[in-house]
Amino acid sequence: MKGKFITFEGSEGSGKSTHSRLLYDYLKSRGLDVIYIREPGGTKISEAIRGLLLDCKNEDMAPEAEMLLYMAARAQLIAQIIEPALKKGRIVLCDRFLDSTLAYQGYGLGINLKLIRDVGGFATRNTVPDLTIFLDLPAREGLKACSRIKTKDRIEKRPIKFHLAVRSGYLKIARQEPKRFKIIKVEKDMRLTQKKVRILAGRLIK
Amino acid sequence: MKGKFITFEGSEGSGKSTHSRLLYDYLKSRGLDVIYIREPGGTKISEAIRGLLLDCKNEDMAPEAEMLLYMAARAQLIAQIIEPALKKGRIVLCDRFLDSTLAYQGYGLGINLKLIRDVGGFATRNTVPDLTIFLDLPAREGLKACSRIKTKDRIEKRPIKFHLAVRSGYLKIARQEPKRFKIIKVEKDMRLTQKKVRILAGRLIK
Repeated sequence: MKGKFITFEGSEGSGKSTHSRLLYDYLKSRGLDVIYIREPGGTKISEAIRGLLLDCKNEDMAPEAEMLLYMAARAQLIAQIIEPALKKGRIVLCDRFLDSTLAYQGYGLGINLKLIRDVGGFATRNTVPDLTIFLDLPAREGLKACSRIKTKDRIEKRPIKFHLAVRSGYLKIARQEPKRFKIIKVEKDMRLTQKKVRILAGRLIK
Repeated sequence: MKGKFITFEGSEGSGKSTHSRLLYDYLKSRGLDVIYIREPGGTKISEAIRGLLLDCKNEDMAPEAEMLLYMAARAQLIAQIIEPALKKGRIVLCDRFLDSTLAYQGYGLGINLKLIRDVGGFATRNTVPDLTIFLDLPAREGLKACSRIKTKDRIEKRPIKFHLAVRSGYLKIARQEPKRFKIIKVEKDMRLTQKKVRILAGRLIK
């Protein structure tokens, strides 16, 4: 693996998709060989799984099925896109990755964390990000920002208690893996937040 | 759990769907409270996953994604149908279950068997069949029978070497769990095979 793998995490409405895309544009403009993907998705099979996961009609989805579907989408993305790109030395920016499953299905839904890590190792072929940028925003603020711009999906619709547990899960991961998992506090001025994102990414890429 | 859980396994073309349905009709005619389901499938979410798994267009599906999708479909079926039915004391007949993943993705594709058992325990909420009936037919014969009646799906299309490994995997499971996992040799006369199926089921149900 010669490439660099950067993942973005964040609560709902933290702006992680915006900031990961802005970083993509910036790196691209500097002539770097970079790809941008989002999870769940990024391949035909994974996008079909995304459809099942986010569809509000599937409100009776069992927590176990939900966790396994996220992992299946991830496994396909790793095999088809991420692993080949890293082998070619490319920079891979991924909007969400395994930490999302730890935060949402582990800390949020209460699924055993060791099991998530074991299944995650299998699904990702033990591919660990070189850097994970967590855009932190209190859950209430994020959900408010989120509901202003779009209709909520099945996960976003969950009660505030769930989203509080997700955020506190992310903060626990940050304490466990401080070298890889970096917290950026979301600023009101988007340019300030993006500046911090570029500094972190720049340290890795040089 | 007061009900009884009987699963059917078999190589392609062994007639397991026919025999499980015949047993269903027989038990029903005797006034028993029995349900019949097939895997992957049996719920709206699981049937959608089945569509992804068997679609020949998805020939680039990663082995890890395949295994996780089978498990996700199973998790949903357990939560929504099997567990509630067993709690109500019903007899559940299921065409394929966890042993299929051990045989096809474990022995067939080479995925670690312990991992499949661990993920399987999670997906099934540790629900183990009271009886598994394996309809045994040499792989070549089964595939021939199969191709006479329908177009092959993505799994059936795999080379004979794969199907030989699947069958030998099933025979290994039979040696490991002789009390639960029973082999019935498929007879040319379907009535003889069905008779043996009814004897095994009858011992469990009484």
